[in-house]
Amino acid sequence: MTHRITILGATGSIGKSTAEVLAQHPDRFRVTALVSGSDVRGLAEMAHRLEAEFVALADASKQKPLREALAGSGIASGAGPSAVIEAVEREAETIVAAISGVAGLAPTHAALKKGRRIGLANKESLVCAGAAFMRDAARTGAAILPMDSEHNALAQALASGHPDDVVTMTLTASGGPFRTWDEARIAAATPAQTAKHPTYSMGAKINVDSASLMNKGLELIEAHHLFGLRPDQLDVVVHPQSIIHGLVHWRDGAVTAGLANPDMKIPIANCLAAERRLTMSVPRLDLAAIGGFTFEAPDEARFPCLRLARAALAAGGGMPAVLNGANEVAVEAFLSGRAGFGDIPRVVEETCAAFAGQAGYEPATVEDALALDREARRIAAGFLPAVSRPAVARV
Amino acid sequence: MTHRITILGATGSIGKSTAEVLAQHPDRFRVTALVSGSDVRGLAEMAHRLEAEFVALADASKQKPLREALAGSGIASGAGPSAVIEAVEREAETIVAAISGVAGLAPTHAALKKGRRIGLANKESLVCAGAAFMRDAARTGAAILPMDSEHNALAQALASGHPDDVVTMTLTASGGPFRTWDEARIAAATPAQTAKHPTYSMGAKINVDSASLMNKGLELIEAHHLFGLRPDQLDVVVHPQSIIHGLVHWRDGAVTAGLANPDMKIPIANCLAAERRLTMSVPRLDLAAIGGFTFEAPDEARFPCLRLARAALAAGGGMPAVLNGANEVAVEAFLSGRAGFGDIPRVVEETCAAFAGQAGYEPATVEDALALDREARRIAAGFLPAVSRPAVARV
Repeated sequence: MTHRITILGATGSIGKSTAEVLAQHPDRFRVTALVSGSDVRGLAEMAHRLEAEFVALADASKQKPLREALAGSGIASGAGPSAVIEAVEREAETIVAAISGVAGLAPTHAALKKGRRIGLANKESLVCAGAAFMRDAARTGAAILPMDSEHNALAQALASGHPDDVVTMTLTASGGPFRTWDEARIAAATPAQTAKHPTYSMGAKINVDSASLMNKGLELIEAHHLFGLRPDQLDVVVHPQSIIHGLVHWRDGAVTAGLANPDMKIPIANCLAAERRLTMSVPRLDLAAIGGFTFEAPDEARFPCLRLARAALAAGGGMPAVLNGANEVAVEAFLSGRAGFGDIPRVVEETCAAFAGQAGYEPATVEDALALDREARRIAAGFLPAVSRPAVARV
Repeated sequence: MTHRITILGATGSIGKSTAEVLAQHPDRFRVTALVSGSDVRGLAEMAHRLEAEFVALADASKQKPLREALAGSGIASGAGPSAVIEAVEREAETIVAAISGVAGLAPTHAALKKGRRIGLANKESLVCAGAAFMRDAARTGAAILPMDSEHNALAQALASGHPDDVVTMTLTASGGPFRTWDEARIAAATPAQTAKHPTYSMGAKINVDSASLMNKGLELIEAHHLFGLRPDQLDVVVHPQSIIHGLVHWRDGAVTAGLANPDMKIPIANCLAAERRLTMSVPRLDLAAIGGFTFEAPDEARFPCLRLARAALAAGGGMPAVLNGANEVAVEAFLSGRAGFGDIPRVVEETCAAFAGQAGYEPATVEDALALDREARRIAAGFLPAVSRPAVARV
């Protein structure tokens, strides 16, 4: 039986990698729908290539150019929120949820409410509304398959035993481009410097999060929800080669781990597969050629975002949503030259502190999580540097 | 329900580690029988400590001292081949097969014929009679649980997918004490020098096999039988830290691996567990404290035993039994000063060559395998150095 796939966030990094996986298996998959934010040309090109049934743009203003780009193809299209919902509603076995940012929450949740298999690449779904997502997945029978290399590796490693026999899980971090830098140099880092991720090529926002280790902090929060572990059962080790992605420590002292060359197609293919794995034409992992792995404890003094994410995870409730919203505001300000790299943890910390009184509040719905996110952003904006600083010159 | 255990080879290295695992879980296990070759004192002491029902010595001449050592304990005992068989026949859920050498074949096979769960630590069972063992295990429903750290790790890593989706498996090797030595220095190595295994403390025979990498070659042969892989699907990487024990490479490019601190109690506990893992009080694997792993391709020029084992595996049939018998003869001669370290691969190679005409012969029974082993030993002895060499002085 062909397996029908819908991709939300089709023209982003994960969406494109998903398309590459599908292109390696044209007989096995059929594309139901592709959704992009506003990339008319990228979406139309992919729709032609993958012979999609339907495509949707979130940006309602681009309906006409999209229709023109698809003229004569027989591919149906739409634009705006209702078109996105139509994409989610069309019959598909698996929905790849790869819209980045909080914009991904509502469509991902809509897919989950339909009880579909979700290939989850949108971090914010679990970070901002993890309790609601996991509850609704359990209720509807939606399987959440993590596409992040770390969580995908952990899910594979977890197959070797009973979940209750897990003592701890370790997520690895590349350490980012500032791994060996001192505190002062990190604080003065420029957006261009964050773009040099050692092992993956990704978007600007995730590059900054990788450089600050906030990305790893958000992944700890995701792992907490995905695998039902307490915050103290989750830790991070810096592993610059990024070959081991995650390790499960069992109560008998054994450890199982998921490894792969740094290639997003591998975890994606793992999620798209049904009972049996897909055959992927990717280079074999060659340990002797790599020569070695190194490991170090993450330094939360130089990378305070990891400490802040751990604290938000420990606080629970809505605090991870607050952390995430504040981080997005600070990273955006950093990327546009309105804040320094060192402002990111400061803004996040001050924002989280401002919400300390509401630590018990847990967003029960996606709407609640989005409301909390908006509120966190509003508060965070107030902690940004008042005027354009020399940081502008750094862009 | 208490889980009844019988240990064959109770007073050896694996037997003692098994006893330590059992001692950590007195409420969960009961010891049915303990079997040793001739170590009266060690066997009696362990029998008292573990409150065994029955103990047996293979050495029939030691019946009296054994009975005296157990006087008043209520522990039944016997000595000689029939006592060993009685130990195997007594009711137990799991039999740990840890007798070393070809002496382990018959009792291990007897346990397997009873359809028991076998914790397999005797290498020679699969190396010399793998086809017969796997066939009889399938017929009787005996589960073979590998206790070797490498195969145990592979069995755990294999849980993440369908066996037919495995592309290759990698076994790691510490590289042994001569890893960085040149060919001439290796050829002149002494028994004392082989005793410095970098990560495990084991017996003299296995120390030599680790130093020559023959041990890893034998493990490749075991893996072939245990996991049903072709010889070309199995490889070795040298990893001196011995933390990753085995890796499974899947067709989607993902790799799962089994890791553990080098402590035999961990794979043993894994085999003794039923559906759920045992809780072991062992130190947690701390990657940051270890700092790094290194990997290198094994050098078959300096370590020809690995090449010879691969060739025997590729030849199939009885050739692995011939290889093993010749190796035992050569190692024994080396340990007693009658041969040099460099004689080991030479004797093995010449013996295998002498059997090249019988490459198609597959021992169908344990008896056939033992007969082939005797024949290989006889031929191998003829290839030993004619007189005592200066090597004597090295002991």
